[in-house]
Amino acid sequence: MGTRQAVRTGGRSARVQQAVHDAVRHLLTERDRADLTVPLVAARAGVTPSTVYRRWGDLQELLADVALQHMRPDGPPADLGNLRDDLAAWAEEWLEEMSSPTGRAVARDVVAGDGDGRSTGQCCAYTSGQIEAILTRAAGRGEDVPALDAVLDHVLAPMMYRVLFISDSLAPGYGRALVGTLLGPR
Amino acid sequence: MGTRQAVRTGGRSARVQQAVHDAVRHLLTERDRADLTVPLVAARAGVTPSTVYRRWGDLQELLADVALQHMRPDGPPADLGNLRDDLAAWAEEWLEEMSSPTGRAVARDVVAGDGDGRSTGQCCAYTSGQIEAILTRAAGRGEDVPALDAVLDHVLAPMMYRVLFISDSLAPGYGRALVGTLLGPR
Repeated sequence: MGTRQAVRTGGRSARVQQAVHDAVRHLLTERDRADLTVPLVAARAGVTPSTVYRRWGDLQELLADVALQHMRPDGPPADLGNLRDDLAAWAEEWLEEMSSPTGRAVARDVVAGDGDGRSTGQCCAYTSGQIEAILTRAAGRGEDVPALDAVLDHVLAPMMYRVLFISDSLAPGYGRALVGTLLGPR
Repeated sequence: MGTRQAVRTGGRSARVQQAVHDAVRHLLTERDRADLTVPLVAARAGVTPSTVYRRWGDLQELLADVALQHMRPDGPPADLGNLRDDLAAWAEEWLEEMSSPTGRAVARDVVAGDGDGRSTGQCCAYTSGQIEAILTRAAGRGEDVPALDAVLDHVLAPMMYRVLFISDSLAPGYGRALVGTLLGPR
């Protein structure tokens, strides 16, 4: 009985999360993000505003939570047979997603909703996990691999900086070029 | 008369801005940023809430505007006689300011209040201006200088990424080390 209770709660909790996330995503296709409010999201999701406040704290944190789902990788990074191509493919895909208006809004929401460092930390963990998978695979092939920190500092950080601060300076090929600078001439 | 009117409006406008900025700064020393509201700021500043809405749009943009004032450089970067030391001194000072809890909140506010790209663009302009001043001065001394973009990508971006995403990974000396990586061995 105790167990069933826990399972039922978990299921309802997951359904509430799904409904609220869906409501945010749908509302964002219809109106400006500045016009979103917790009561509006709650009404669309079919829950009470206090359910949203209790679970997410405020709108900013809810938006960060939705944005994080967007940042979660779909699967392991592509295996193209060597470190340089794997890193470049990952960087170019990241760039393509994040340099869109939606991607930029997602990055902004993750940063903005980060009073306690949770959403940015999780975002960073997703990305670091992908890069580490690429580095581990390359090391397994016997390739020389850079430190994770070097990839964060010199490939991911410049891309994120431009997404957040000077997004009109982004063009396809920029991620591959950063990987080239990090790894040196082929 | 038309001129005097314009001057008086400008003066009042500047006083309103000063009063509202001061109100935000004082309120932030007293309470959590999540508890700030436009009516609260307006009451402290002695203006009506609609004055704040008319001028800043919403709280997020107001916070970004206050944060930007914080990012504005106090003066030209220090001249230590050579590029490497000038860049390292600038980077270490930036890091010291921005890795504090206040600095992180400022960076977050600039990003969060950036619906139209204005606040991040201005933030980037301040920083680029400081770096350009260092590069121009070094070129005037006859030193080889890197491109502005290389300094943004490989010194500023890694520092900003860590401030926003993994702030517990920052330590003094990190800015100088990034400059060393960019410029190569002395």
